[in-house]
Amino acid sequence: MLQNEQRTEINQLGEFGLIDHLKGKVKLHNESTKIGIGDDAAVVDLQGDVVLSTDMMIEGVHFDLMYVPLKHLGYKAVVTNLSDICAMNTLPSHITVSLGLSNRFSVEAVEELYAGINLACERYQVDLVGGDTTSNPNGLIISVTAFGKAAENTVERKGAKENELLVVSGDLGGAYMGLQLLEREKLVFKETPSVQPDLGGNDYILERQLKPEARVDVVIQLNNLGVVPTSMIDISDGLASELFHLCSQSDLGCAIYEDKLPIDPTTYQTARDFDLDPTMCALNGGEDYELLFTIKQADFDKLKNLPDFTVIGHMTDKNSGLNLVTKNELVHPITAQGWNHFTDDSDKEAGASD
Amino acid sequence: MLQNEQRTEINQLGEFGLIDHLKGKVKLHNESTKIGIGDDAAVVDLQGDVVLSTDMMIEGVHFDLMYVPLKHLGYKAVVTNLSDICAMNTLPSHITVSLGLSNRFSVEAVEELYAGINLACERYQVDLVGGDTTSNPNGLIISVTAFGKAAENTVERKGAKENELLVVSGDLGGAYMGLQLLEREKLVFKETPSVQPDLGGNDYILERQLKPEARVDVVIQLNNLGVVPTSMIDISDGLASELFHLCSQSDLGCAIYEDKLPIDPTTYQTARDFDLDPTMCALNGGEDYELLFTIKQADFDKLKNLPDFTVIGHMTDKNSGLNLVTKNELVHPITAQGWNHFTDDSDKEAGASD
Repeated sequence: MLQNEQRTEINQLGEFGLIDHLKGKVKLHNESTKIGIGDDAAVVDLQGDVVLSTDMMIEGVHFDLMYVPLKHLGYKAVVTNLSDICAMNTLPSHITVSLGLSNRFSVEAVEELYAGINLACERYQVDLVGGDTTSNPNGLIISVTAFGKAAENTVERKGAKENELLVVSGDLGGAYMGLQLLEREKLVFKETPSVQPDLGGNDYILERQLKPEARVDVVIQLNNLGVVPTSMIDISDGLASELFHLCSQSDLGCAIYEDKLPIDPTTYQTARDFDLDPTMCALNGGEDYELLFTIKQADFDKLKNLPDFTVIGHMTDKNSGLNLVTKNELVHPITAQGWNHFTDDSDKEAGASD
Repeated sequence: MLQNEQRTEINQLGEFGLIDHLKGKVKLHNESTKIGIGDDAAVVDLQGDVVLSTDMMIEGVHFDLMYVPLKHLGYKAVVTNLSDICAMNTLPSHITVSLGLSNRFSVEAVEELYAGINLACERYQVDLVGGDTTSNPNGLIISVTAFGKAAENTVERKGAKENELLVVSGDLGGAYMGLQLLEREKLVFKETPSVQPDLGGNDYILERQLKPEARVDVVIQLNNLGVVPTSMIDISDGLASELFHLCSQSDLGCAIYEDKLPIDPTTYQTARDFDLDPTMCALNGGEDYELLFTIKQADFDKLKNLPDFTVIGHMTDKNSGLNLVTKNELVHPITAQGWNHFTDDSDKEAGASD
């Protein structure tokens, strides 16, 4: 992507030179950042409880640079961590970023990556306060840790009660269909390099995959509505997997309704084109970074007409298990699929802060 | 090392299974840990400013599993990060650990690594509150983020004044000589696998390399003595490199005295055996994780008779540069060496939180 442009080797700058070079492009947005990049440690004033989460993204496991632009990758690496902070019903404020870089990467490539990191920091008004940059024999590693100040109402994965309503923000399955599309075009390109990729009309699902957003707006909206979820998780590994976490930590089962699952028309149509079941894509796709949470029935009226929220089901007793009620009213047990990096090598996100 | 013992493949447990398995062995030491491993994020109460630092260690760059036992590696990965928190004159309290693991590693191997991580947490009364575990196509990656509650007197790299005294804790060059010894025995083993390693009588320098400690005790001692350093850094890349950081951030030069450099007799003798200059080993060796700091001259009496501290020189004006006064009173400019991962591939630590 950058092959015809200027290429500066990282060893021309050295590690500290590279850091100085990148530091110049980091803007701070929060008064709470007392000491940022450039000392042994950073100092941030969060005036109370600190919420923190960390994730590692590895080339060949979590991303494929054949179709992921470095700027998008930097943006996504930040956003996926901010999403974990949101999943505690909390607003993120600071991040650290550690990079492992093989000598395949030039200074210009690292700048592209940082352009994405800085863009995410700007968009979410989050401060980059430290990190580590080191060489890596093989490919690119990005490890991000995100922090936030705990709100009065920090929400955990546990805490749901029977009959409470299951709500998701946004829509599901789009990121997965974006990935399918990119993988298909990669195969076509490998076979016939002269063919231009056919990605037209699919901006929405491509953006869901390449440039996801953290639902900071949902946390703010819930706070404004006076709704405190009773349990919450972000959808990184797929709805089914996250339902398992919520149910297991709250010691409950759940029932969700196929006809309630929010699926964007582009996602639906692309799934059909790929001969996939849109419901399965929404259930097991992953990487949507939407929020899944439970609310008391009494809070239903506050959310029911808002476009960002969809009630997809409710919590049941543990013995009922996790079930999907299909459009023709059949009840199917839900199974968690595709979330294990050690048994498959899909491009899905690893679990968050655990 | 574990080849004759039980081997459980990680995919038998899966990512979440592995986390559950390891979680059972994590003990918490601090009341400030409100939510630990097992949610989207951790919540810790640090009641004020938070000090945080992160480091990434990569197999083949920062460590060689041919001679580093996994338990030691886990311990060291934690300690090197705690050292960065100490370098702000602060006490560490929490860590997160992210691992990238190739399928070469069994569950038992990861347990060994965690045994070292948990031992360090126990030794330093630090809580492991989160992390991420993912597969990695090549080798082992460990990314640790450490946190502490900022003391009243957080000390930065900048802040030294002309004529203030340069002090180091402990002694220098030992970790580097330990590494030389291990590298030598590795070569011997490669050539003649039947020969047993000759490491006898070198426990001190081997331990400096394989099981370094963070100088939490020095931070406590300084506090008890009522000494607030005017600038501080930990010695991860070598004294020379750290002097460059302190001088550049304080806009000063310095003079240090060869005959004052604290070098352990084992370090000295091993350097001689390897035909190396002990002074150069102390200056450029790295990985000692001692603290280098400046104090006001008025504080000299408080430290002068304490075995943990050595005054090695003083700060000078910027134009004088950084100088070493040799035993025969010659003045040599100091050069920073061997700290750049991108120009060499030594086993030295990467810079800390920058």
